[in-house]
Amino acid sequence: MKFFDCSTAPSPRRVRIFLAEKGVEIETVQVDLRNGEQFSADFQKINPDCVVPALQLDDGSCLSEVLPICHFLEARFPEPALLGSTDIERAQVLMWNVKAEQQGLLAAAEAFRNRTRGFKDRAMSGPVSYAQIPELAERGKERLLQFYRRIDSQLASSEYLAGTRYSIADISAMVAVDFGAWIKVDIPDDAPHTRRWYEQVSARPSAAV
Amino acid sequence: MKFFDCSTAPSPRRVRIFLAEKGVEIETVQVDLRNGEQFSADFQKINPDCVVPALQLDDGSCLSEVLPICHFLEARFPEPALLGSTDIERAQVLMWNVKAEQQGLLAAAEAFRNRTRGFKDRAMSGPVSYAQIPELAERGKERLLQFYRRIDSQLASSEYLAGTRYSIADISAMVAVDFGAWIKVDIPDDAPHTRRWYEQVSARPSAAV
Repeated sequence: MKFFDCSTAPSPRRVRIFLAEKGVEIETVQVDLRNGEQFSADFQKINPDCVVPALQLDDGSCLSEVLPICHFLEARFPEPALLGSTDIERAQVLMWNVKAEQQGLLAAAEAFRNRTRGFKDRAMSGPVSYAQIPELAERGKERLLQFYRRIDSQLASSEYLAGTRYSIADISAMVAVDFGAWIKVDIPDDAPHTRRWYEQVSARPSAAV
Repeated sequence: MKFFDCSTAPSPRRVRIFLAEKGVEIETVQVDLRNGEQFSADFQKINPDCVVPALQLDDGSCLSEVLPICHFLEARFPEPALLGSTDIERAQVLMWNVKAEQQGLLAAAEAFRNRTRGFKDRAMSGPVSYAQIPELAERGKERLLQFYRRIDSQLASSEYLAGTRYSIADISAMVAVDFGAWIKVDIPDDAPHTRRWYEQVSARPSAAV
């Protein structure tokens, strides 16, 4: 297996944390996003969507997108389980992971890419150029704050997002918080449980990757 | 189990198709989205995100979001498998489902909700009001066309999105195409394999729900 990574980008970091939690090291290739290596003919063969993470399997086929990559890694390296262990736990982990992606990571990405000078005409990742939309940057910030309040009510009664065990949902939401810091959106004072949870998951050794 | 549905909405239709493929009927409650029933105190206990689909389990707990609901249903009703049967197949199904959601369904939703008069200040589903962003409607249409071309290259050599077997990825992408028709974005002439696939999956009895 070969993992296509970029050490500065939030999405592949989710896979790095996932691997660190499992104590697994796999061959890793850095893709130089800053200089457009993701658009090279070589990388387009790995992932025509021109984004990392990607995972090349031993038969040469490639997976892209965080969730399927982690699903495949969980099957290869089952312990500790980060996608749940029972049917209901698996569904709850997936549910909170969807919410962390849609309400957290996507909001942070919209806020960041639609107002950062270096991303002019790169408002979305991928092979097509899309112009920045300033209102979308503002909306992304509001949505991210809303996400912190949304998970606060869950974390008031739950140690981790999907229950008593750390999971991929916590990885996704923690990376959203760190992404939010790039655009100076912090966990608000009226989300104390989100703050407690963030400090707890950030203290894990895996968060340092 | 109790399934919270809305017969006119694209997201819960994905679950209806999933159930129809399995030949399963479960108790279903219609949520009147047109008259704001999703914002009622009763429904907020089911899903604080105020969207359908939702699935209430026999212990009273609730799942929301399409993928986790379908994951849970697949565990209860395994045949026919719609989430893949081997580790690699499962990962490929998830991968194409993510792409269908992010590049297809989300694009169609952005195009629809950001320009339809009845959705003024309802540019996103959920409990918070967000103003429409006209540029986002235009970008959504462009992205949807791009999605049809993106899957065309996959469908040139693959009967279904994730390989030789119909899966949840096909359900998600087909619903995106039908959602796109609401905003008059059709599969373009330069995506003939997407057209072939769409006619094939639309002819399945499950597509009628």
